[in-house]
Amino acid sequence: MGVIVQKFGGTSVGSIERIKNAAEKIIKTYEKGNKVVVVVSAMGGTTDELISMASEITDKPDKREMDVLLSTGEQVTIALLTMCIHSMGYKATSLLGHQAEVKTDSQSGSARILQVGKEKVSKLLDEDNIVVVAGFQGIDDSGNITTLGRGGSDTSAVAVAAAINADICEIYTDVDGIYTTDPNICKKARKMGRVSYDEMLEMASLGAKVLQIRSVEFAKKYQVPLHVRSSFNEEEGTMVVNDDTDMEKVLVSGVTYNKNEARITLKNVPDQPGIAAKILTPISDAGILVDMIIQNTRSTGLTDFTFTVPKTEFFEAVELSQKISDSIGAGEVIGDENISKVSVIGVGMKSHSGVASKMFEALAHENINIKMISTSEIRVSCIIAEKYTELAVRALHTAFGLDTEE
Amino acid sequence: MGVIVQKFGGTSVGSIERIKNAAEKIIKTYEKGNKVVVVVSAMGGTTDELISMASEITDKPDKREMDVLLSTGEQVTIALLTMCIHSMGYKATSLLGHQAEVKTDSQSGSARILQVGKEKVSKLLDEDNIVVVAGFQGIDDSGNITTLGRGGSDTSAVAVAAAINADICEIYTDVDGIYTTDPNICKKARKMGRVSYDEMLEMASLGAKVLQIRSVEFAKKYQVPLHVRSSFNEEEGTMVVNDDTDMEKVLVSGVTYNKNEARITLKNVPDQPGIAAKILTPISDAGILVDMIIQNTRSTGLTDFTFTVPKTEFFEAVELSQKISDSIGAGEVIGDENISKVSVIGVGMKSHSGVASKMFEALAHENINIKMISTSEIRVSCIIAEKYTELAVRALHTAFGLDTEE
Repeated sequence: MGVIVQKFGGTSVGSIERIKNAAEKIIKTYEKGNKVVVVVSAMGGTTDELISMASEITDKPDKREMDVLLSTGEQVTIALLTMCIHSMGYKATSLLGHQAEVKTDSQSGSARILQVGKEKVSKLLDEDNIVVVAGFQGIDDSGNITTLGRGGSDTSAVAVAAAINADICEIYTDVDGIYTTDPNICKKARKMGRVSYDEMLEMASLGAKVLQIRSVEFAKKYQVPLHVRSSFNEEEGTMVVNDDTDMEKVLVSGVTYNKNEARITLKNVPDQPGIAAKILTPISDAGILVDMIIQNTRSTGLTDFTFTVPKTEFFEAVELSQKISDSIGAGEVIGDENISKVSVIGVGMKSHSGVASKMFEALAHENINIKMISTSEIRVSCIIAEKYTELAVRALHTAFGLDTEE
Repeated sequence: MGVIVQKFGGTSVGSIERIKNAAEKIIKTYEKGNKVVVVVSAMGGTTDELISMASEITDKPDKREMDVLLSTGEQVTIALLTMCIHSMGYKATSLLGHQAEVKTDSQSGSARILQVGKEKVSKLLDEDNIVVVAGFQGIDDSGNITTLGRGGSDTSAVAVAAAINADICEIYTDVDGIYTTDPNICKKARKMGRVSYDEMLEMASLGAKVLQIRSVEFAKKYQVPLHVRSSFNEEEGTMVVNDDTDMEKVLVSGVTYNKNEARITLKNVPDQPGIAAKILTPISDAGILVDMIIQNTRSTGLTDFTFTVPKTEFFEAVELSQKISDSIGAGEVIGDENISKVSVIGVGMKSHSGVASKMFEALAHENINIKMISTSEIRVSCIIAEKYTELAVRALHTAFGLDTEE
């Protein structure tokens, strides 16, 4: 018995049949004596259809109107799901983002939730309703409809859970939990029983696409336990929780990879104070996100300056770098699109040493050359040649003892 | 130069191409120096698709949720039309029903507009925006989304026009105006240049489906001139205005018909005070709308009591009538589904006599028997056998001098 938020993604409500299936899960939870709030995405494919309609009108649709358009997707789902719950004999009420008091900033298309009111939802729960909330959408100060960007319904769910102080937020999806690595490239990947918020944050940002990163930030901030599980079976999935709970203290919890970065090197940069800012400021002013940065001091007074950018912005970044190089008197600009980043992640490494060296050994053992290295408290990442990605992931998965026993 | 409300129905925004066409019309009006508010319906077919999705879930969808579902249709249109106007280089902002402050009662699926605020729309107009409002939808006192029922966008348009004191409300549709009768059954039907609110009210309720009746009531109440015209050409349509404007004072402006009624007669009803109420109260308690009622006094102390009901409710009404007849000691109940109502309408007849007798003569001349008669200040209606409908309409159209000259 408690207050439970259940989130169903686009695949989980992708057809009338699946909506009925979701309704049954919801009612089962309600019948156990829980108060239930449901947060849903648009039916799978709907958002793409709407985007394609807009693109028939113009290449650059107005962002405010795009939000008005896209937010209809979730609106259709909440109406259908709520009437379905009704037809099964239970009280239910749907709420749009603004009705559920989901307040956001005014950044159309990628708005951030500022606050979620609890009055309306709590009142409906107290009146014995199952409450069905449209994910992905909110309202700004001026009353404009906003959307949170792809995957935003996860964040809606966690934000609503935080607002009403829910005991748990269940994320129903088309996978059955969080895996130690991508099961598509590593057959020995294992479903994790638990993972910490911090590990999940690193995994989300590094390419495991199960949860939107912002939803994990929210869950951590407001201490909302998440349960990521399949909407197509009854099995337990993965709990995302604080790392001070009784988690097995493994050194490394997971291995991730990201093929969406590219590397740029400026050769023979004059090694002067402030030179890094001179290079990176124009890049970030152009709205290009820089990830890893390496600068080696050399005795000659010249240095090579290397950084990574998203592949989609590679050409723009190379062009810009050429101009920067000319202006600061540096040398050749070398770009490399054929790279990927592999990372090992684990809260356990905070208290252990040797993770990095173990990683380097494992890669060396497969004759994989490391081009760049970066680390955080709970992560070590290496840039390698893209073609070795899968091999590297499998080698690291084995080296850190993550493989399933067969 | 002035303030103009333009309403585009489902057919007029039924495809991306037609939305672009509507945007061009809107911009042309704006370029003439007018302030323009646009009210739109869902793209043709959308509402039916949504209804069909709901019917896959349940036979009796919850009405509140049905409104949440259906209101997405107009939301898609306002977003697409507004981004289209944008892409053509003009400022435009879309507003949902609740954003445009369209307040309604709580009657889901057939809500009535109580009030329309003007602040938001006026502010946007003052900032030089073309304002695009979702028709058909509003919000009730508790913040629930409501819809106005089929054709509701007409009413939305007129209500918004009234609120902002617009100079005119243009209704763009797939016909090019209001005709003296149905052109499908009478080749000599003429497009009217002008028609009065009162005549239009009689025509709308009698079967001319161009304008929702409630929109005409609104237009009359708030003195909003309507211009019904085609969205596919530039021709003038029909003005719907007060009858004290310089309208040609013709005796009869139009001929209408309605095949959707059926007739029920209770024979040998005891002719006592209050007997009509005893018969009709149970009928209206069952939610059946009674149109015409005839009771003839006879010398025997018995009378025949006849009334008409919508064909869809004929069987229920007959069954009910049988029970009523038993309880009041009346005789046989006779039903007739094969009837239709033909009417002649005209504000001119207020000041003329002889319209009724001219109508009866014209019908008699075609050997059409009249089964029932009813009149209002500006209308005479006759119930005839359904099979004579088209013949009767053409005969009356000719008799009252409405035929086009060929």
